[in-house]
Amino acid sequence: MSRVTVTYRVSVRPADVAAVAEGIALEQSVELPASAVHDAEIKANIAGRVTGIRQHGEELFDVDIELATATMGGNVAQTINMLFGNSSLHAHVELVDVRFPEDLLATLTGPRFGARGFRDVVGVQDRPLTCAALKPQGMSVESLAQLCETLARAGIDVVKDDHGLADQTYSPFPPRVQACQRAVDRAYAASGHRAIYAPSVVGSPRRVAEQVRIARDAGARALLLAPSLLGLPAFAELVRDDVEVPVIAHPSFGGATRIAHPLLMGTLYRALGADAVIFPHASGRFAPPASECRELAVRACAPLGRLLPALPVPAGGLQLDSLGEVIAFYGSDVMLLVGGSLLADAARVGERAARFVTAVVKASLARDEARA
Amino acid sequence: MSRVTVTYRVSVRPADVAAVAEGIALEQSVELPASAVHDAEIKANIAGRVTGIRQHGEELFDVDIELATATMGGNVAQTINMLFGNSSLHAHVELVDVRFPEDLLATLTGPRFGARGFRDVVGVQDRPLTCAALKPQGMSVESLAQLCETLARAGIDVVKDDHGLADQTYSPFPPRVQACQRAVDRAYAASGHRAIYAPSVVGSPRRVAEQVRIARDAGARALLLAPSLLGLPAFAELVRDDVEVPVIAHPSFGGATRIAHPLLMGTLYRALGADAVIFPHASGRFAPPASECRELAVRACAPLGRLLPALPVPAGGLQLDSLGEVIAFYGSDVMLLVGGSLLADAARVGERAARFVTAVVKASLARDEARA
Repeated sequence: MSRVTVTYRVSVRPADVAAVAEGIALEQSVELPASAVHDAEIKANIAGRVTGIRQHGEELFDVDIELATATMGGNVAQTINMLFGNSSLHAHVELVDVRFPEDLLATLTGPRFGARGFRDVVGVQDRPLTCAALKPQGMSVESLAQLCETLARAGIDVVKDDHGLADQTYSPFPPRVQACQRAVDRAYAASGHRAIYAPSVVGSPRRVAEQVRIARDAGARALLLAPSLLGLPAFAELVRDDVEVPVIAHPSFGGATRIAHPLLMGTLYRALGADAVIFPHASGRFAPPASECRELAVRACAPLGRLLPALPVPAGGLQLDSLGEVIAFYGSDVMLLVGGSLLADAARVGERAARFVTAVVKASLARDEARA
Repeated sequence: MSRVTVTYRVSVRPADVAAVAEGIALEQSVELPASAVHDAEIKANIAGRVTGIRQHGEELFDVDIELATATMGGNVAQTINMLFGNSSLHAHVELVDVRFPEDLLATLTGPRFGARGFRDVVGVQDRPLTCAALKPQGMSVESLAQLCETLARAGIDVVKDDHGLADQTYSPFPPRVQACQRAVDRAYAASGHRAIYAPSVVGSPRRVAEQVRIARDAGARALLLAPSLLGLPAFAELVRDDVEVPVIAHPSFGGATRIAHPLLMGTLYRALGADAVIFPHASGRFAPPASECRELAVRACAPLGRLLPALPVPAGGLQLDSLGEVIAFYGSDVMLLVGGSLLADAARVGERAARFVTAVVKASLARDEARA
């Protein structure tokens, strides 16, 4: 009997925790009171069961529940349904951990390139990668392409669309993607540095599949996808069936989900196919706890069945003058995403981007020397 | 300039609310500090702007922000991206209302049948509809079909799959749906009462489209879909392109979203194509505030551009002996979903289902007489 062990963090009085835990186990499996389950097989093999309760705070508990893998029906949507379908309607319950058994892990795509494969595409193995964003939205295709070329010539490894760029009238998807890819190609010809351009692809499943084809035909060598925005099942299917280049996952709309961010962005985005995962760093404008950032980065790379590791991408307001601290915090196997900080002065974007690249190389060398 | 007015509920100290509101307006549009937006057109037409701040509690404010419709790019995923993409990563921000301009409303599918069209399919206009669920999962196809026939013969209007039924090995989708549809057909032949069977369809976009075809070929006359589980963009596309029967929306995984439930389930599920929306009633095992339930039901039916009203479906532990109160609370234009309460005694399911049907008819008549 294969089972998935799920941990829920529950705000509840100590006297009630046993009953609440039992309630979640039933809600997330048979969805009936135990007394209304008449079939012995179903009681034994399908009904969820509580296997652990740990006190985490005065009125806060971690509850472990085993759910039958068979209920998850071999698909992502149904797996989410069983992990956190109806119990999501209980405001006092948060999904904080999932331990997948080997047979379920084997059905997941995971990263197809992984951290190392993504680095192979970029062509850099031994230092943190640099990433910058094309924004603000509202810019014309020509202006975006010009910015893209400036960043690429400055030596940025990966230039990604702002996740807000979709298929708007002021910068429609096909000409934008074609123009930005040509921009990095021009920068390569001029400077010898080959940046990767990652277009943002956002929409309903069929529209997104079409945009993936357009990006491929334009020669784009990575994609930016927001799994929670597309819907986790749609994201997983798209990566598995349609995408042939590394996938950078963006956390947009992910924060709206009452699933602990390290689980959602570190484990689940990776398990569903992300090769790199963007997440807010503690020092930026989203300011999550540092311990959460570290756990997220660790989960992105930690052993998980046969799944490849994904590259952590701290972001959300990184400043040029504190990159050394960020590298010290995560180590060198990351990609650093600096967005707005490069764009504050329109006349000096290239200069600031070059400073970013130099700062990363220097900080990384300093760190390696200190460790040697 | 068409703009969408979005209301966020923000937990913040009074001294900080103006800056936080401005921060959301920028985050959800240009994603740059105002000082880094150099283009006057973008400043004027693309950057979000704060249009109202109302105190809601000691450290709780409702903030109105206008976002340019042009940024939403005419698609559901990008609209969610602009409404609550990065700001979802701020735990102190909840999305509580959206007022769509006419031009954006015109791009939304909305219910294709609506409350009245759904009632036409069921064949009942003048009283609350009755709905029961096939569960627990783990039952064989034969047992589910038998339960389905029992409920249909008892006079239930709509028999739906438990939302946990997917495509599991113990009750695979195709034979289950075919057997349950044959069960309601047999009940019709035997009793003259024609129940609607609504299979639960859950999975990734291509898999779900295939299941919709299987359900159609089997003759199913409604579908149960969980928009938040499929992903809102995938749900909207599926309903628009593939589904030809009324859609009952299930709230599974919807509670995980930090979007006020009346907005999510009452307005958004409807706007994206639900003809009926299931939600937890105040007296059941999910116990949301009664005011929230009422607002959700009102939003499902309230005028919204040219969109048809959706039928509210209170659920989540309704008891047979308190249906009169539920009808008094919502009025008669609802469908009442009674699940586990019918199934407590395996030998008396038909009897209890018949009691449910009779109770609804009586309570509805009593209410009509009291009002006449």
